Amino acid sequence: MNVRNSQNLSMLCDFYELTMGNGFFRQGYRDRIAYFDLFFRQVPDGGGFAIAAGLEQVVEYIRNLRFEPEDIAYLRGRGLFDEGFLEYLRHFRFSGDIWAVPEGTPVFPREPLITVRAPAIQAQLIETYLLLAVNHQSLIATKASRIVRAARGRPVMEFGSRRAQGPDGAILGARAAYIGGCSGTACTLSDQCYGVKALGTMAHSWVQMFDSEYEAFLAYCRMYPDNAVLLVDTYNTLQSGIPNAIRAFNQVLRPLGIRRCGIRLDSGDMAYLTCKAREMLDAAGWTECTITCSNSLDEYIIQDLLLQGARIDAFGVGERLITARSEPVFGGVYKLVGVERPDGSVAPKIKISENVSKITIPHFKKLYRFYRRETGKALADYLCLRDEAVDDTQPLEIFDPEATWKRKTLTGYAARELLVPVFQGGELVYSLPSLEEIRAYCARELDTLWEEVRRFDNPHTYYVDLSQKLWDIRYDLLKNGGRD
Amino acid sequence: MNVRNSQNLSMLCDFYELTMGNGFFRQGYRDRIAYFDLFFRQVPDGGGFAIAAGLEQVVEYIRNLRFEPEDIAYLRGRGLFDEGFLEYLRHFRFSGDIWAVPEGTPVFPREPLITVRAPAIQAQLIETYLLLAVNHQSLIATKASRIVRAARGRPVMEFGSRRAQGPDGAILGARAAYIGGCSGTACTLSDQCYGVKALGTMAHSWVQMFDSEYEAFLAYCRMYPDNAVLLVDTYNTLQSGIPNAIRAFNQVLRPLGIRRCGIRLDSGDMAYLTCKAREMLDAAGWTECTITCSNSLDEYIIQDLLLQGARIDAFGVGERLITARSEPVFGGVYKLVGVERPDGSVAPKIKISENVSKITIPHFKKLYRFYRRETGKALADYLCLRDEAVDDTQPLEIFDPEATWKRKTLTGYAARELLVPVFQGGELVYSLPSLEEIRAYCARELDTLWEEVRRFDNPHTYYVDLSQKLWDIRYDLLKNGGRD
Repeated sequence: MNVRNSQNLSMLCDFYELTMGNGFFRQGYRDRIAYFDLFFRQVPDGGGFAIAAGLEQVVEYIRNLRFEPEDIAYLRGRGLFDEGFLEYLRHFRFSGDIWAVPEGTPVFPREPLITVRAPAIQAQLIETYLLLAVNHQSLIATKASRIVRAARGRPVMEFGSRRAQGPDGAILGARAAYIGGCSGTACTLSDQCYGVKALGTMAHSWVQMFDSEYEAFLAYCRMYPDNAVLLVDTYNTLQSGIPNAIRAFNQVLRPLGIRRCGIRLDSGDMAYLTCKAREMLDAAGWTECTITCSNSLDEYIIQDLLLQGARIDAFGVGERLITARSEPVFGGVYKLVGVERPDGSVAPKIKISENVSKITIPHFKKLYRFYRRETGKALADYLCLRDEAVDDTQPLEIFDPEATWKRKTLTGYAARELLVPVFQGGELVYSLPSLEEIRAYCARELDTLWEEVRRFDNPHTYYVDLSQKLWDIRYDLLKNGGRD
Repeated sequence: MNVRNSQNLSMLCDFYELTMGNGFFRQGYRDRIAYFDLFFRQVPDGGGFAIAAGLEQVVEYIRNLRFEPEDIAYLRGRGLFDEGFLEYLRHFRFSGDIWAVPEGTPVFPREPLITVRAPAIQAQLIETYLLLAVNHQSLIATKASRIVRAARGRPVMEFGSRRAQGPDGAILGARAAYIGGCSGTACTLSDQCYGVKALGTMAHSWVQMFDSEYEAFLAYCRMYPDNAVLLVDTYNTLQSGIPNAIRAFNQVLRPLGIRRCGIRLDSGDMAYLTCKAREMLDAAGWTECTITCSNSLDEYIIQDLLLQGARIDAFGVGERLITARSEPVFGGVYKLVGVERPDGSVAPKIKISENVSKITIPHFKKLYRFYRRETGKALADYLCLRDEAVDDTQPLEIFDPEATWKRKTLTGYAARELLVPVFQGGELVYSLPSLEEIRAYCARELDTLWEEVRRFDNPHTYYVDLSQKLWDIRYDLLKNGGRD
């Protein structure tokens, strides 16, 4: 069913991946093993963490990675590439290793979400798509998580397809929003492809198509008595929409013994109108009629509405979720962190910048998350060299990598490795979880974060520490201007 | 070659299009002819106009519109739809009429970019995709137009794939950016699919892969002597990057007699560094070496850099263009404006809102643009009923639809109809222009706008007027609470 996963997006790469690939090929670097980390530097919206998403699309991309004759013909036409390189592309398959943090994991700046170990050309070529997939879905999952938390248990539906940035923005955006905690989507294709439950009832045009609002509501209730959510703001919410909805409920649903129904408001002062609507519905005996709101909402407006006592049972959130309007860019980057020497050891690589926060963390690494054993709460994340191992039965001294005199010794913690093997020697070794599993895992992992880390503004900065060995290697590289 | 155009996106619709479609079917409204307008209410970023884009994708969508057996099976599984309706969908084809403003046209709030006349179910079903396609590409074309104008003749490359909101965000975004005036893209697939010239040379990883920066530059110049654009900020721009670039140019290009080459800067103080770089390059005799900059740029930063005297020859613009970061939502809407009566006349329909700016302009309409005959400059746009016609050899009184006492009589103007027939009776009657033609047309039409309309902030509000007949019909509907 999942037709979209079979698309070959191999040519969705920045052109420089190909000029560099051709270059590596000609330089004899084709089989030189390179290590790249995909990570981000800043949480959108000033939040305390992001939600990793997009790995399933990365997996499908890697599995479909190949160049078709028309791709080779296009590249030949550009007049820049060696025939030897084009021949190499004709047989191109990914043969490397990939580790990744599972989708739905809360993640923090500077830690790898994906680590790639592969021949240089391969590792380089996949850069653009890996970033695109992870940046997009992590952005939307993170935003959805904020909005869902603001709704305090009330369902949030993703309604944004029409304002999405392209078809994939809608379809994959709905998937990511579901991971972040949304209850469903308006996007039918996202349900069909990914199982994100699609819902919806009527637009204003339904009401306008009839001679009167009442007739429109009546017809709808008769047709969908179990799913009668009526849009009440086409003409006048309080004077016409709600009274007509109540009349239609009385006329059609009451005789059937149906008590569950709903109204939706898409404009006006939601705090005022929903309180009035609740009064009118309750007075008419429709206490189980739910009120859904859906007009340019985001986490702050939802929080405000609930603080003001708005009587809202569910939210439909569109453009501000599907584009992450307040910060529509997730700034993931993909950086070379090591190159394998002929003896198999790793030469660490660093990217230096005048902006200290942009300096990378070199080397082939492991990423641990430490949880307090009694509470299950996450204490810190910890990056170390690949050949180091944490024994969580033993105390461990950790320190702030910027303020190295700040040290503490951990005891009573459980260590979990976050980067799991996904591809080994080009073979998929990871069993992709279902979307429901990812969503449930995300909710569980959110619960391991302290409230202080989860708040929307000025959250507590979660620790992402380096092992002493890793810190020393990085410091030495910096002292030597990047050369090891 | 254009593989992406053959995708069937029929199921990319909000679920309520289907519940309403099923409802119209059961109500016997299946063949009732409805009129819908697609328009927007506000120009992003406070600009004076937008650039219409996305029509080619709308055309391909309409041509591919059909429901496959697996789509029907999915819908049947939802348990909401009549078998009669599912059978209807099995044979579904679009049989209506569509008029649209050509891609690349500067457009203004409240005027239709697309008008659809079709049986209600059909007209309703295509809502989501039409909005999605036009909203996305108009957003990016409009943003690109601003950025390109800020660059004052210097080429702007679209470099944002890795931060795009999904694969289509990258591929179609590059297409839209090209319409808006960009010179090319980093996105290889957008070149292959749409002919947006893809360019690129190297990332920091190229430099890091070699034992030294100089060796990396040397290798690149040897391999691509005609396309040697070197990234100079991996270690230290002024102390290492530019001196090494000059050494490599001297070593490889000078003996070949090549004088055209380039450097790219991706970090640091661009105003300072580019002036220093220019001095160093000129002193070394590399006066034809271009300087490209590419670090989180947008129209304001580019404007500032040029005001500060930065010596920049070309720009690469990524995330802030491909997501239209400062305003990532283009708020196009699709509203019912009329329903055909049994006698073939049109019953106008209006959507009333407490927010006056959200009240729609009813009826089946024409859209004219008036140009001053002597100067070719655009004077005003003019909406009238479909059966009205403007004779531009005669004077015409126009008036402000909100301040109706403000009137003026036009003479010496040429009237051009902006909405052109695209589909008639389900058949494509429009010859799609090439992307180059669209881009050139867009540039020409931009020139018809006064500088005051084109400025970035607080632009002059361009007139979009209504004919007296149309104004009267709208006023009568408003007086009667929406009923005609």
